Amino acid sequence: MSSAQDCRQAVQVDERRLVQALTDLAGFGGSVGDGVARQTLTPQDLQARTWLAARFARRPGYAVGIDEAANLHIRRLGLDDGLPCVMTGSHVDTQPLGGWLDGAFGVMAGLEVLQALDDANLCTQRSVQVVAWTNEEGSRFAPGLMGSQSYVQPDALASFLGVQDAQGMRFEQARDAALADFRHAAAIGGWTCFEARLAQPVYAYLEAHIEQGPVLERRGLPFGVVRAIQGVRWYQVTVEGRSAHAGTTPLEDRDDAQSKSIALAHALLRYAEEKRSLGLRVTIGRWTCEPGAINTIANRVGFTIDVRHPESSEVSAFDGFLREQLPPGGRIAVLQDKPTTRFDPELIGLVRKAAQERDIPALDMVSGAFHDAMPLAGFTRTAMLFAPSIEGISHHPEENTAEADLAACTQVLADCLLELAQTAPSPADPRRASPVL
Amino acid sequence: MSSAQDCRQAVQVDERRLVQALTDLAGFGGSVGDGVARQTLTPQDLQARTWLAARFARRPGYAVGIDEAANLHIRRLGLDDGLPCVMTGSHVDTQPLGGWLDGAFGVMAGLEVLQALDDANLCTQRSVQVVAWTNEEGSRFAPGLMGSQSYVQPDALASFLGVQDAQGMRFEQARDAALADFRHAAAIGGWTCFEARLAQPVYAYLEAHIEQGPVLERRGLPFGVVRAIQGVRWYQVTVEGRSAHAGTTPLEDRDDAQSKSIALAHALLRYAEEKRSLGLRVTIGRWTCEPGAINTIANRVGFTIDVRHPESSEVSAFDGFLREQLPPGGRIAVLQDKPTTRFDPELIGLVRKAAQERDIPALDMVSGAFHDAMPLAGFTRTAMLFAPSIEGISHHPEENTAEADLAACTQVLADCLLELAQTAPSPADPRRASPVL
Repeated sequence: MSSAQDCRQAVQVDERRLVQALTDLAGFGGSVGDGVARQTLTPQDLQARTWLAARFARRPGYAVGIDEAANLHIRRLGLDDGLPCVMTGSHVDTQPLGGWLDGAFGVMAGLEVLQALDDANLCTQRSVQVVAWTNEEGSRFAPGLMGSQSYVQPDALASFLGVQDAQGMRFEQARDAALADFRHAAAIGGWTCFEARLAQPVYAYLEAHIEQGPVLERRGLPFGVVRAIQGVRWYQVTVEGRSAHAGTTPLEDRDDAQSKSIALAHALLRYAEEKRSLGLRVTIGRWTCEPGAINTIANRVGFTIDVRHPESSEVSAFDGFLREQLPPGGRIAVLQDKPTTRFDPELIGLVRKAAQERDIPALDMVSGAFHDAMPLAGFTRTAMLFAPSIEGISHHPEENTAEADLAACTQVLADCLLELAQTAPSPADPRRASPVL
Repeated sequence: MSSAQDCRQAVQVDERRLVQALTDLAGFGGSVGDGVARQTLTPQDLQARTWLAARFARRPGYAVGIDEAANLHIRRLGLDDGLPCVMTGSHVDTQPLGGWLDGAFGVMAGLEVLQALDDANLCTQRSVQVVAWTNEEGSRFAPGLMGSQSYVQPDALASFLGVQDAQGMRFEQARDAALADFRHAAAIGGWTCFEARLAQPVYAYLEAHIEQGPVLERRGLPFGVVRAIQGVRWYQVTVEGRSAHAGTTPLEDRDDAQSKSIALAHALLRYAEEKRSLGLRVTIGRWTCEPGAINTIANRVGFTIDVRHPESSEVSAFDGFLREQLPPGGRIAVLQDKPTTRFDPELIGLVRKAAQERDIPALDMVSGAFHDAMPLAGFTRTAMLFAPSIEGISHHPEENTAEADLAACTQVLADCLLELAQTAPSPADPRRASPVL
């Protein structure tokens, strides 16, 4: 056994402590089982952030910070804090009524790793930094992923500042309040702070998350190595026809927007069904028709398509099929187009190996949902770790994961973070500019 | 040539007078080409009624009346006014913005026949009575056909009185105002009135109407002998599924209400297409889905089906197919079910023969829309006559018919009414009780 392995086996996460921390966090805006209402930058979210920071901000060897996008950073200082840190985290904001694990698990898993490193009395070469990204969900301020997107591309922040929530509050006001809140808590709490800035170099980013789908559970596997986030394209399809009387107009004289739309949608869903084993996912989530009278032939129908696949080429093939099938009077608009996010092969290998060494059966898989790791993947080496979701339920009070699975995923995260943080700097590594304040 | 034929050929409708009267009527609430807004019992409708009645109410040999359902009757007295009358008519109310012919044509064609009888100086055996039924359209007070339904089934009127329009006015108030309006006009105008009562026996009822569909025009025929009104059944289909994330849920794990509904709707429309040559008409006019988010699998979809066929057995066969195809989570409710209305074979023969004798090429056909003749068919011998609709357009300002076609249809109506009104009473004919007042 190498000394690195010795060292790793010495870092042991504590399942009970992890679950307790997650349960405590759920108390900010809800509770385990009843759901959590903690939309981004609400009082519940700010209180949760303060609680998180306060737990570490006065420990020796720690510093906390908040960047311009109000992302909260908790940094366990390495031997050479000037090196780009090893980063992990996720988000603690929820949907209007979400579960206790979506996002929260990734943050609390990271913090549990920090505590396990403390338990083992280990000082890493690089600093290990846990981040709680602002507004991943996008339910209060749209779009989501604002914090992580701003981190990797600070110019993006300016475009988010003017976004308003349903009460007309601008994201900028909410962000400023969060910054003030943090500074106030830091001042009265005697916190050790560092200047957290957007776009600061990161050596590697790992994000633990619940799967939010049923794949791991169906396979009976406790852990997923996420190699990619599938590409997604959103379409608005509009089909025009001619309104006429349902009673007096024979079928051969009709230009029925509804019939044309149903035929098109049916062809698209059949296409998806044929490609199902390849991982194509097609969803028709919205459907409207005009004039919408029982005895009147529709003159306009609109529906949306959400199409996802791990290979962007399959999304393109679907696009070709859609355009070919479009009936007379039909047109399409692409509302959103995100290509597949591919994670770093070396990092994926590291996660896979770490699971193997802990005898945790793992599935190589693709994430169906977006995560903060998506923007990060364009910025630094990135990978994700999945814990199974019971019945695939998420964004719902019933969202749940077996505690042992949460712990197993956190253990793999710990082993990987330790390995990355112990890595000696390469000569090309940029030095970190901002000292601990 | 028999004397009956002599007599018929002597009754000659006047195309110019007919079109002028229709144009004048359109002036109440609109104009030819720009559409007509004359919903039932509005000031426009009441003014139109007064104008109609006033044109005949002081002529020798005429009497006017209004019944409890505010149906307006204009009666040309026969030699034996105590016999059940020969009745014709339709309605002068319109959709919120309708055309100049829907309903109006049937009333004005009847009145043109009365004038042609006057021109010919003919006194018929039976009285000939033109009726303008109240609220055929049902756009202000739902349902439609209130006047004709009340006439044949006076008990039905009580259930209509409480119906309110969008401004909260009860049908009863509007009806009472129409009765008062008529009595006031009659008193100051010196009208000859008769006591018009619901359910008074009718010897035969003929209704001229525009087709409101494209069938006659497509066949290049100027006239239709309507042998039936097709049966109609309305369904509300509801399909339940399970809401889930469009990105994380593989197709095989979904219970997608939208996919199930599209497959069902597609099967129903294919079935209709296969039966198209038999006259089956299937329309899916409304479609709703929940929650209606682009990236969420629908948990509930609802859509309506309007199915019509001249043979009620074909509607039943469709019903069987629908129930057989219903997916798990699907249920149906029948919102309305009206069997096929079959008109009187003798009367149909009379209309067909009259057209032949005038060398007017005619098509035996089925009405796709409802008409006042539908309730009347359960009360007395009934048939309908159709004039073609240009491009099948109706309920629209562009609704139109060639003037020569309007005149041809009116001429056939005149010949038929005359033949019926000349018919000697059978011993079984009930005597009319109410004398001219």
